[in-house]
Amino acid sequence: MSKLVIVGTVAFDAIETPFGKTDKILGGAATFIGLAASQFHVDSAAVSVVGGDFPKKYLDLLEDKNIDISGIEIVKEGKTFFWSGLYHNDMNSRDTLATELNVLADFQPVVPENYKDAKVVMLGNLHPLTQLSVLEQMNEKPKLVVLDTMNFWMDNALQDLHKVMKKIDVITINDEEARQLTGEYSLVVAARKIHEMGPQYVVIKKGEHGALLFHDDNVFYAPALPLEEVFDPTGAGDTFAGGFAGYLAKTEDLSFENMKNAVIYGSTLASFCVEKFGTERMVNLENEEVHKRLQEFKALTQFEIELT
Amino acid sequence: MSKLVIVGTVAFDAIETPFGKTDKILGGAATFIGLAASQFHVDSAAVSVVGGDFPKKYLDLLEDKNIDISGIEIVKEGKTFFWSGLYHNDMNSRDTLATELNVLADFQPVVPENYKDAKVVMLGNLHPLTQLSVLEQMNEKPKLVVLDTMNFWMDNALQDLHKVMKKIDVITINDEEARQLTGEYSLVVAARKIHEMGPQYVVIKKGEHGALLFHDDNVFYAPALPLEEVFDPTGAGDTFAGGFAGYLAKTEDLSFENMKNAVIYGSTLASFCVEKFGTERMVNLENEEVHKRLQEFKALTQFEIELT
Repeated sequence: MSKLVIVGTVAFDAIETPFGKTDKILGGAATFIGLAASQFHVDSAAVSVVGGDFPKKYLDLLEDKNIDISGIEIVKEGKTFFWSGLYHNDMNSRDTLATELNVLADFQPVVPENYKDAKVVMLGNLHPLTQLSVLEQMNEKPKLVVLDTMNFWMDNALQDLHKVMKKIDVITINDEEARQLTGEYSLVVAARKIHEMGPQYVVIKKGEHGALLFHDDNVFYAPALPLEEVFDPTGAGDTFAGGFAGYLAKTEDLSFENMKNAVIYGSTLASFCVEKFGTERMVNLENEEVHKRLQEFKALTQFEIELT
Repeated sequence: MSKLVIVGTVAFDAIETPFGKTDKILGGAATFIGLAASQFHVDSAAVSVVGGDFPKKYLDLLEDKNIDISGIEIVKEGKTFFWSGLYHNDMNSRDTLATELNVLADFQPVVPENYKDAKVVMLGNLHPLTQLSVLEQMNEKPKLVVLDTMNFWMDNALQDLHKVMKKIDVITINDEEARQLTGEYSLVVAARKIHEMGPQYVVIKKGEHGALLFHDDNVFYAPALPLEEVFDPTGAGDTFAGGFAGYLAKTEDLSFENMKNAVIYGSTLASFCVEKFGTERMVNLENEEVHKRLQEFKALTQFEIELT
């Protein structure tokens, strides 16, 4: 079992979907990643920042999940990062209604001293230079660095993104972003080009169509569990990444075969995340439920063909 | 091994893709279905119609693949059905440039006498009443009837489509069509509604995102093989259906477990179809190549998770 350092936002989200809307609730990449990784009982620390308006009960909740919060700076006079979004009927597209950076604008991540030897680092979606700063604070190169990013940084900080991409092992990115980053429509070709930019492993997330893992000539395809209804997609990508990194931190096996399992765990946890608003489902998720759903994933994808 | 009756178009296609364009080449649903099913060496018959302009070499080609052509009517004074399409850069959308029904306009399918006892019938995309007419000619209800259809019939012959849907076991349909037919966005809910319309098994084709097989509470998800480039998608859906039906005709096992294998075979064969223009790849496909690609499908989707 390796220590896991998670960097990302801890935030307020306000979400509107065809099923309803929320006030400001707990959100943020580091939150979703941490909750997903907590399923594996790894020793993890969140590196983030919140304002004086951030309720103690949310910090307590993270601590209850065995997430070290000493790396979450509290800026008393500041306000917590806030995001608000409206999902359309198909749940695959959304409008951002508000993005208030607040304390995130001046965020300087500080890795707690006793996590600088962590073997696994999960760089949640943030400015590439913030992600890089976390890596530079580690005592030595971690065994595994996973990076999540989004099109916003391709539009606004592409050079910096390329800089951090040279220092990581795995990138998780969605299909449209992979196409934007490479100018290639074929995801096979896009993955190869991204590989040449640094990361040995490329995970392309396709939402309801699942996720692809690429490494050299190997490809693995994990479908998303077909769901009757997606209630709220917020945090699904972070939950996927947290499940992926958490599983690898727990197992310490970085073979391609084991990475497949990490993708399956990520997909499984993400399938829970979308069932309720925000973090609600993840906070109350039992180990037994995860096992049951892993069995569903097996039934969904496994087959026995006799080659004749 | 069961006899297989295939009904569908035998046609001329003219195709334009970002990679090039063709003159009039061999196409049609029954052609692609028959070529795919021929991989299993089943005793199959194509029921279709062509005009006097249809080259004998194409009929010979079908016969060489052990497809009985006595059910392909030749209307000497007529012209063969012609379709022309232009694929856009993403290969997921296309414009139909021409559809000339010609001899298809008055097509009355006639099932050859010695195939009226066939246990498996594959109803390729055609007017629902034409599909129904084939079923009515069978000596008794076949063990398995697979139907392929498209949005055109939902727009123009919905009542007739519902009529034939009550007589079939499996429907293959794409995701947008499933949504159109049911008014449901969730494919899980859509599949349940389609099930209530007749077919016990519902296969939803998602193009580059693979295919889903639904039966009662069981779901199986076969991804599409991620390809560097899709050269020409024409016939991929028919090839999928032909692989599916051909495998089931060969194995005569209609269990859900074996239907999974049929979906994998269908996906495997479709992954070849798109590599070249029209039928070119399928005509020259070797059994060995299919086996190799099935292994790739296994590597792509199979995993071993120890539940701890």
